[in-house]
Amino acid sequence: MSKERLIYLPLGGAGEVGMNAYVYGYGPAGKERLILVDLGLTFPDMDTTPGVDLIMPDIAWLEARKHLLDAIVITHAHEDHVGALGYLWTKLRAPVFARDFTARIARLKMEEQGLDPMVVNTVAARPETVEAGPFAIQFVPVSHSLPEASALVIDSPAGRLVHTGDFKLDPTPGVGEPWDRAAWAAVGDEGVKTIVCDSTNVFSPHPGRSEASLPEAITALMQSAPGMVVGTTFASNVARVKTMAEAGRAAGRKVCLLGRAMQRMVAVAQESGVLGEFPATIPPEEAAGLSRDEVLLIVTGSQGERRAASAQLARGKYNGLELTAGDTFLFSSKTIPGNERGVLRVVNQFSALGVDVVSDETDKYHVSGHANRPDLDVFQELLKAPMLLPMHGEHRHLREHVRIARARGQASEIVTNGMMVDITGDTPKVIEHVESGRTYLDGSVLIGALDGVVRDRIRLALGGHVTVTVIVDENDEPLGEAWAELMGLPETGRSGAALIERIEAELTRLIEGAGRKLMRDDDKLNQTLRRAARQVCLEEIGKKPEVTVVVSRLLDE
Amino acid sequence: MSKERLIYLPLGGAGEVGMNAYVYGYGPAGKERLILVDLGLTFPDMDTTPGVDLIMPDIAWLEARKHLLDAIVITHAHEDHVGALGYLWTKLRAPVFARDFTARIARLKMEEQGLDPMVVNTVAARPETVEAGPFAIQFVPVSHSLPEASALVIDSPAGRLVHTGDFKLDPTPGVGEPWDRAAWAAVGDEGVKTIVCDSTNVFSPHPGRSEASLPEAITALMQSAPGMVVGTTFASNVARVKTMAEAGRAAGRKVCLLGRAMQRMVAVAQESGVLGEFPATIPPEEAAGLSRDEVLLIVTGSQGERRAASAQLARGKYNGLELTAGDTFLFSSKTIPGNERGVLRVVNQFSALGVDVVSDETDKYHVSGHANRPDLDVFQELLKAPMLLPMHGEHRHLREHVRIARARGQASEIVTNGMMVDITGDTPKVIEHVESGRTYLDGSVLIGALDGVVRDRIRLALGGHVTVTVIVDENDEPLGEAWAELMGLPETGRSGAALIERIEAELTRLIEGAGRKLMRDDDKLNQTLRRAARQVCLEEIGKKPEVTVVVSRLLDE
Repeated sequence: MSKERLIYLPLGGAGEVGMNAYVYGYGPAGKERLILVDLGLTFPDMDTTPGVDLIMPDIAWLEARKHLLDAIVITHAHEDHVGALGYLWTKLRAPVFARDFTARIARLKMEEQGLDPMVVNTVAARPETVEAGPFAIQFVPVSHSLPEASALVIDSPAGRLVHTGDFKLDPTPGVGEPWDRAAWAAVGDEGVKTIVCDSTNVFSPHPGRSEASLPEAITALMQSAPGMVVGTTFASNVARVKTMAEAGRAAGRKVCLLGRAMQRMVAVAQESGVLGEFPATIPPEEAAGLSRDEVLLIVTGSQGERRAASAQLARGKYNGLELTAGDTFLFSSKTIPGNERGVLRVVNQFSALGVDVVSDETDKYHVSGHANRPDLDVFQELLKAPMLLPMHGEHRHLREHVRIARARGQASEIVTNGMMVDITGDTPKVIEHVESGRTYLDGSVLIGALDGVVRDRIRLALGGHVTVTVIVDENDEPLGEAWAELMGLPETGRSGAALIERIEAELTRLIEGAGRKLMRDDDKLNQTLRRAARQVCLEEIGKKPEVTVVVSRLLDE
Repeated sequence: MSKERLIYLPLGGAGEVGMNAYVYGYGPAGKERLILVDLGLTFPDMDTTPGVDLIMPDIAWLEARKHLLDAIVITHAHEDHVGALGYLWTKLRAPVFARDFTARIARLKMEEQGLDPMVVNTVAARPETVEAGPFAIQFVPVSHSLPEASALVIDSPAGRLVHTGDFKLDPTPGVGEPWDRAAWAAVGDEGVKTIVCDSTNVFSPHPGRSEASLPEAITALMQSAPGMVVGTTFASNVARVKTMAEAGRAAGRKVCLLGRAMQRMVAVAQESGVLGEFPATIPPEEAAGLSRDEVLLIVTGSQGERRAASAQLARGKYNGLELTAGDTFLFSSKTIPGNERGVLRVVNQFSALGVDVVSDETDKYHVSGHANRPDLDVFQELLKAPMLLPMHGEHRHLREHVRIARARGQASEIVTNGMMVDITGDTPKVIEHVESGRTYLDGSVLIGALDGVVRDRIRLALGGHVTVTVIVDENDEPLGEAWAELMGLPETGRSGAALIERIEAELTRLIEGAGRKLMRDDDKLNQTLRRAARQVCLEEIGKKPEVTVVVSRLLDE
């Protein structure tokens, strides 16, 4: 038996929706040649990551082995698959491969960070093949909610893998390639050993619906709406953008795109030729001059994001346009768990303006881009792989996917971020847990999730902040009184006296009564003052804030 | 025509779900005698209210008129209707009226704040009547998701009002009174002028289902589950708690209640006699000793709250009990918008433990406590009131409810918190906008939502904090260098040098080069240092933190 082995190691996306990053390797143990599939990001929230701009996988393990990395392969252009490329590429410096539309987006990501876009190589669909070390990689078109999504056929000396990326089985996806049963049957007939498979919709019990089921309802809505219509979806869902634009045109409306991401995505799709014929668009100034029932705005902000066009319209004017009673706002999208409050904020603001909001609750105006439970079954039946590893999903998705796979007779295992699995043989074997986790883009700096920076900010948010300053003279005696400043704390508490005065009085009493030993010991003095300030706050206002103590010492000249 | 008028003024609950507080008044303009219906709270979140413990209505308007307030009437014992009573009662000092179960809970709220529970009066159901100034108030039993929920019939010299509170039309609610069509027909026959009506489920298109539709499915689940079963619901939903307990008993399981709120609510319900026969419960120590398939835990934490029993079980042990592969966790509850992430966190933690999670997605294990759209129609047909004011709902709910009422031929208006409406005549007339808003319980202190305290904490969470200290001597010269401390900020930025050193160097340079004029002007020096520190941070790390500057001056003795 050969000493070479085939390994699978997710660094992101396995145990969460978002931030996809999957490593495959082949070679002698510990010296495998590696490829990375996708390098995505995920989005922060106030609960766990206040002030953070973007969240990316911690790729320290891979960075330490970058000399072994032969390729970075991007399945499609969604942020959770390509969004971290510009931020992390310099840590890896491997060539990047993607199909044309994806490659165009990937190059923009590189350019935004001042990097050379030409490291991104354009690859045509199967049978074109990328040779990367021991791997031969082909891009097989799949339908998804954006153009040129691809699954990967990855041939290795230990057999064929199929990495699905995000996919659905849509015979009429509007934009992008339709589900091609025959092509996949051919892949299956050649023999597939392991499928690493999208898990996000594993709990959806009914077969997925086609993008083609939407235009009728959306067109009817645009025709019957008395005022302006505003539609939102993910900017990258250019099929949906096109569906809405065509519905608007059919209803006699001029189309105006609002939001930078929306304009950019449509522009790239047009350049790459995947969009086909798209209705002419007008600028917002022109839209403002038309009768309201002649206008369709297609805008960013389907998740209620505060800075997106939808939220700005909900708060008032945006680009000179303003919504009013009789207008209609259409969410042609699904609310991602966690974004409900933001979306409802926008909905209620529109309600207060008298705007009718139509949302996805009825399923009439939105279809998912992922394979549902029965679709997964169809796919597996075609490919007949003896092994399935579920990827891209929360733990509950992965667990359910394993259950289904095993019921089908496939070898399967829950593999989450950081678990390295040997898939050389007939069953997946966990061989190592490597350090994985999250890297934050915080302002312009990359920091580790466990650096404590964000933990401190959460504490500040929960408890507020007290600054304490004390001056100690050349003889280790306090010079004057203790001084305090508050931020994010109430002015008065239980005693009715100003909180700041209560703190200053207590700390002054403390330093005036302190022995020389304490006054000489910076650490101990600092700690004592900190503890005392927190104690006063606890008594006065019932909470312990964060405290910064500065002891300034005057020195003999 | 009389100069007296009948007014309606919501201070909470109208434009939101939660924090109910509705004022009615009758008398000469500006001198109306007043009653307050409900005094509830709502819950904070990290996005908008980090560190806040509870959110309550701002009742400053009512406090200024407490001499006119004749009664506080509580419709039912949910936190969003009675939860603020203990915190705000001393601002109002009016007698409180409620039915027995609600009154018991209300008295606990008073006792918790060290107040006299005996200000809470127990009132029997209609025909018993509370006379409160110009109002005669009767409690009419309605079905809801807890015992003894009541609508109010409020007779005034300007006609009869019905204030529904939260309600549904359940002929078999398990615990609490069933929907009594005849009683409501009688109320209607006596003539109702205005209905102020629950709006929360106005978008639910199908008739509501009865609590009695659940026991079969829940019992089947408890019987087929191989290991321990853990069920969660709102503690106040004692009907559901009972349904689960009886299902557990039928499946041969002993029942153990976990979580203080759960134990307390069941105890109060038993004391007040509304619970009827309830299966015997066992303490956790005993449950730990039984075979897993003999145990049912009923626990708090249906919304994924971090400190509740469900979340603690998801993280590990709680009260000596621990879940494991083969156990089943049942959410017999609905996830309130905004709580999705917390609930999914718990679900994924259970998934990692191998616990099967059954949630509300199928509607098999949960029914709502509120009247759906068709139920609202049934209720209105019985009461035949010419006017409807929608309450308890977000703006979108109120708007839809007004639309429906007008389509029915009722006079109706969207009335949100702070809008005073004259309902003496045939149509509601907005007559005044009074100051309303939110009061926060922050630790042990009540603060105003607009006090800036929470705003500062949000800024700290997003930007982190820098402390800057500078000492200035008797001659207005800097003594030594500037000193900085960071909290919630990365250690290094763009330049690769320590951020703290970059700040100190820049500020030291600044004070050493500053003229006497600047060094003498505390405000200006403070501002200059603050701005400089923020600018360094912006250049180094791409964000502007909050800055506290302390300038200490040595004085001539």
